[in-house]
Order: sequence, then C-alpha cells, then structure tokens
Amino acid sequence: MTTARSTWVPGAAGSPYDVDNLPYGVFVHDDEPPRVGVRIGDQVVDLAPVAAGDMLEIGHVFEAPSLNPLLELGRPAWQSVRTWLTGLLTDEAERDLVEPHLVPVEEVTLRMPFEVADYVDFYCSLDHATNVGRIFRPDDEPLKPNWRHLPVGYHGRAGTVVVSGTAVRRPHGQRPESGGPPSFGPSRRLDIEAEVGFVVGAPTTIGTPVPVDGFADHVFGVTLLNDWSARDIQAWEYVPLGPFLGKSFATSVSGWVTPLDALAAARVDLPGQDPAPLPYLQVGPGAGLDLDIEVLLNGETVSRPPYASMYWSPAQMLAHLTVNGASLRTGDLFASGTVSGPERAQRGSFLELSWGGREPFGDGRTFLEDGDTVTLRATAPGTSGGRIALGEVTGTVLPA
Amino acid sequence: MTTARSTWVPGAAGSPYDVDNLPYGVFVHDDEPPRVGVRIGDQVVDLAPVAAGDMLEIGHVFEAPSLNPLLELGRPAWQSVRTWLTGLLTDEAERDLVEPHLVPVEEVTLRMPFEVADYVDFYCSLDHATNVGRIFRPDDEPLKPNWRHLPVGYHGRAGTVVVSGTAVRRPHGQRPESGGPPSFGPSRRLDIEAEVGFVVGAPTTIGTPVPVDGFADHVFGVTLLNDWSARDIQAWEYVPLGPFLGKSFATSVSGWVTPLDALAAARVDLPGQDPAPLPYLQVGPGAGLDLDIEVLLNGETVSRPPYASMYWSPAQMLAHLTVNGASLRTGDLFASGTVSGPERAQRGSFLELSWGGREPFGDGRTFLEDGDTVTLRATAPGTSGGRIALGEVTGTVLPA
Repeated sequence: MTTARSTWVPGAAGSPYDVDNLPYGVFVHDDEPPRVGVRIGDQVVDLAPVAAGDMLEIGHVFEAPSLNPLLELGRPAWQSVRTWLTGLLTDEAERDLVEPHLVPVEEVTLRMPFEVADYVDFYCSLDHATNVGRIFRPDDEPLKPNWRHLPVGYHGRAGTVVVSGTAVRRPHGQRPESGGPPSFGPSRRLDIEAEVGFVVGAPTTIGTPVPVDGFADHVFGVTLLNDWSARDIQAWEYVPLGPFLGKSFATSVSGWVTPLDALAAARVDLPGQDPAPLPYLQVGPGAGLDLDIEVLLNGETVSRPPYASMYWSPAQMLAHLTVNGASLRTGDLFASGTVSGPERAQRGSFLELSWGGREPFGDGRTFLEDGDTVTLRATAPGTSGGRIALGEVTGTVLPA
Repeated sequence: MTTARSTWVPGAAGSPYDVDNLPYGVFVHDDEPPRVGVRIGDQVVDLAPVAAGDMLEIGHVFEAPSLNPLLELGRPAWQSVRTWLTGLLTDEAERDLVEPHLVPVEEVTLRMPFEVADYVDFYCSLDHATNVGRIFRPDDEPLKPNWRHLPVGYHGRAGTVVVSGTAVRRPHGQRPESGGPPSFGPSRRLDIEAEVGFVVGAPTTIGTPVPVDGFADHVFGVTLLNDWSARDIQAWEYVPLGPFLGKSFATSVSGWVTPLDALAAARVDLPGQDPAPLPYLQVGPGAGLDLDIEVLLNGETVSRPPYASMYWSPAQMLAHLTVNGASLRTGDLFASGTVSGPERAQRGSFLELSWGGREPFGDGRTFLEDGDTVTLRATAPGTSGGRIALGEVTGTVLPA
C-alpha cells in the first residue's frame, strides 16, 4: 500500500523499522525504570510521556516494566494504539510532542518484553520433523503416525525464557554412553533451534477453545526464538515423556515483539496439508507466514530457514492447544518448533546442518563451542511494499 | 514428641488437624477479600488480623490472596511463623487475641492457595511406570533404559492448575481409532492420577542447581494433586514429545498446603535404588515420605497408594530439575507422578486399576463417567505421635 504517509522520524522511512513495523519492547535508558517503547528507525519512542502528553486514556500501560498490561487490553485497544502511533509518527504537527521522547536505540538496553505465563513449543516443520526422525530413529518411519493429524507440541519451562543478549551457560546433565550407564558432565552436543514465537495477549477462561478464526483476537504478536537444546541430554531423557532438561536451561526471545498487524502483507497460503485435517484445524488461504529467517554463527550466515515452508499454521497451533478446554493467560508464549526448509542451507538446527554430527558444515562445525555467538534475524514483506525486520535474538555460549 | 503442649482450640487436640499440622490456605469468608489462613481442628485462623494484633513484622503477607508473599520469604521466616503460631495456639494467655479470628472451616471457601509459576510432573513410582509400560507397550521392556538413572519428568500447564472442588469438564480431542485416522470427540478414557505435589517457596537464579541437601531451603510444603488424564488423547499424541492435551485441561490441588516441618515424623528411607544413582542424586536415610493416600470414587475407597513405595525422592526430583542450571521461581510446583504400590488395591490410576480397561474393578468400573466425583485424601505420622491429615483434593466430572 504505497498510499501510506511517510514518517518524519529522520532515517526511518524505507528502513527495516519503518512506520509499517512498530514493534514493542521494554527498554532501560540511563538509570530510569524500565518501561514500554516502540521502535521506529534507529530510535525508540518512550511511550509513557508521549501518551501522558497526548492524554491517552490507556497510557498507564506504557509505564509498566512489561508489555503484559498492554497485552491484556485485547485487540481493539492494540489496533487503536497502533493507529494513534502511526498518526504521531507521520504527522509533522505531532513532531514537537514526540521528538523529545525519542531515544537512540544504541543507548537503551532491552529487557524481557513480557512475563511468560505458560510456554508451549510445537514441532510444525515437516522438513525438521523428518530430518530429526531420520537422525534419531534411522530404522523407523521418520514421522510418527500422529504428525500429519495434529501439530505435535509440549510444554516448556516459562521461568527460563530470557531476552536476547543474555549469555547461555552450557548445561550439565546425564549423557548417554554406548554400552554402559550414562556419564554426567557438560553437554557435548549443544545446539540451537531457529523458531518463531507467538505471544498471547487476550486471555480465555477454562473450557472455551479458540477456533482458528479467533487467532488474531488472542495473539498480540511475534517474536524470534532460539530454543537452545542439549542434544545428548535430550536423547537420553526424552522417552517416554518428552524433552525436559535438554531444553529447560534457556530459551531466548527477541527484545522486540512485532504486532500481528505489521505482518498483514506476510500472509501466504500453507504449502498444503495431506490428509485434510479434522474440522477444528481447517484453515483457508493466507494461513501461513512468509518470514525469511537467517541464522548467524559468529557473524557468518550458516542457514536461511523459510517460515513459509511450515506445515502447520500459527492459528492451527492455537486451536489445537485450546481444543481440550485449556485456558489462555496473558503472556502465554507458543513457538513453532524449529523452522527448516527442504534444502540443507535452510535447516534451522546444527543437529540437522551437521546431520547428527556426522557431516560437518561451514568451517568444519558440528555443535556449539564455548564462546560461540548465535544470532537469529528475520524479515517479512511490510504493508508499505518494502521489507520489515523482526527484532533479532542473540546469545553467546559460556563454558559449563 | 509427646512433650508438645496441647492446643486450647476446642476439638483440635488429637484431631487430624492438631497443632503439629497447621496447613496454610487462602480462604474467603462472607464477602471479605481472600486472604491467608491456617487450619487448626475445624477452624481457620484468620492470620492477617491476628498478626496485626500481635504486631508481627511480616504480617502483611497474610493479607495477600495467595501464599506467594509468604513463600518467597524463605525457610527462616517459615520456621519463625510456625513457632509464633504454635505459641499462639497452645498458650492460654494468647486465647483472647486469637479466638475472635477463628472461622469455622465449613463457613469458608478455599481458593487456589498459590500462583503456580512452572509446573513439572515426574514419574517416580516404579510400580506405576512398570504398569504403564506393560499396558501401553506390551511387547517391550516396561521401563525405558533411563528410568533407573534419573527421575523422568516433563513440564505441564501451570495455567490450568485448579483448586479442590473445581468441576472438571471432560475434554474433547483426537482419539486413536484402530486401522484408520483419528476421530474427534469427548475423551472415552478419562482418568485420574493420585499424586503428591511440592510447592517451591525460595527462588534461585539461573545457573545455580539445588543440591539434594538444599531441598528444605527451597520447598515450602506439600499438596495433594490429581493429574486428570485423558488416556485416549494422551496415547495418540505423546510420541515423540510427551503428554500435552491429554493432561493440560485440568490439574487439581488441595486447598491446604502442608508445611514440610509438619512432615518431620513422616520421613522414611527409600525402598532402595539399584543401580546407585549418579553423585548429584545420592541421598541418605530418611529421604522418603510415609504418606498413606486414599482414592475415593463417589465416596467409596477404591485404592490406597502408599507414598513410601516411591522410587525417587522429592529431593532427587528437585536436584534433577535444577542440575542443568534451570532456575526456580516462587510458586513452582512439581509433582511425584502417580503413586502406585505393588498391590492392585494400591494403584493410583484407573488405567492401572482396570489394566487398560480390560479388567473392571469395584462395581465394574474402568474409566471415569460423567458425574463421578473423585477425592484424594492422605494422612502422615505427626510429630506429636498421632496422624495428621493432608488437605483433600476433590473434583466432579462434567459432561463434555
């Protein structure tokens, strides 16, 4: 939509954080208390004083050290705040109100943007699930019989979700040893999983499933997510109740949460579902998301997973999660599972890139080494014709 | 210890809620705001006004609608509050202060006693794990190779933990059908799991494991827990990432949380662990708990699971949960998994009592029917020589 007005914020128009993006985060500047900001170009709008100056009725939500008060207001409020912000940042007449409250992004520290209620991780990439099945269970069918009937998922640890920039210590744990009892020590197969997370705003009560059409009423926005994984610990522990300590030591999310409305132009059809899912999981055109993800290891791109290749859509994940009557709370986070495309250079984990450690990639890499820094980035088509950036998520591995 | 002084509260001495018990809960009386109470006999001590009248420094924690402010104070505070309470309830001179703030237990409604942070469910009964393995995987070894090396566990849904008395609606979900695709509808195999839950008070920071000896510094107390389970949904969905919707619709806990100090006389040795666990999981004498659990279906006792038969101890669960550096938050809840003893009449789930539905028990029962009420009760040796009661957990099944 090229009719959108341009922003007056210097350097922002045409940038990946143009006025059609406007992600939210919680920032600290100088020694002031953490509060809510929105990114425009290379600036952060300090929303609390702007809202106060403009007498915005719900302005108090921006004084909080988390997005949760904004999230729980629900979709009509999210949309009116976005309209208000767009007006402020495109109308020259508002410049005097807003400009004193722009803070350069390099001067702020981002905090964890929301308080995580429950965290669920799905397994929605056909290519990832197939690869992992082949690597972990080479003598079996790679996909379990349920995989094409439901988005497989499990609960993860909400208390160890951390914001981008947080260093991640290599975990200790039980490691399988061939032909003997397990050993104990630092994980030898520390890995990443490049994922996309969905942040729930509006809650539900127990017993009220959210249909696929209700997705946008409950989900506020999107975050990039690195589901750090200790493959040796995971492989030993995961039968029969699923991953536990192989995942629970840390999960990193981006400091910026991109609102769903910023991704309106990124909607694409799913690649196709066969067999047709049960009625509660049926979606129409535009159920997928066209996000180009990039995985960087110490600054070098090692993979470009395409989110558009995902088998199960975000609305299907949410409909499945709630179909048994489970309630949602503000701050619930659910993630897609590793995003892997069909090509080797599109795989979203080192496990797959190195095929279980047997086929080193890049400059001879298999799993993560101490001191490695992993960064996930993503872009999407913006509503004004260019591409917008999702906030990046980065983390450095500390020795055990 | 028969030297303990007797309580002046009428009817309480010698009862299952004698002064050596003193469980905490959150109660509502008349239309007053919910706040913290302690049970003595058939009375609830309204702690906020008593603490105010006695100028107790930390008395404000009792004005909260959850135990979390008390929980986060840590063990020295928990112990001094218990000492203070014991004095008030045994010293006739304190009667005038306390008696006006006793409320009959039948006049109060108990609320969810704490805000659940993360919920983890373990699988610590050798008899239960063996039974389930035989029922679900009859052609395989019943125990997976990891089972005797670590307490197997997984994360559950914190947002659907509900207090005793909450009705539980039969969930819808995908049900496996032999030789064809799954069907969708109400669960046909709704079940219970009789468990004991442990409530974390004092938090930790990420990267600091809690050794087995640190258990009592972090765990405030014990709750009875019914891990409602839809066996058909669970059996279809659980590979490879574990239980999800088969469990996440509801988990019930008792309204009273029994402090660890009330269970000092219930400590027993574990039945024995072979092979010896890794050093971080090694415990000494008295690591187990001697709780006698009773499962009632519509008022009739159908099972008496003995907690003393559990293979893995609570301190081992906590040490394992944190050994990878995962942090604890106030309100974290971890549960033992189904408690089943070696005898049929000691099995803690209908799945086991009916051997997968093939051997009806009681008056011809297999799984739960609409309208059924399940109640879990438990007693333990008290420190004064009698037996104390843990608060019961009860729930009635509503039709889908």
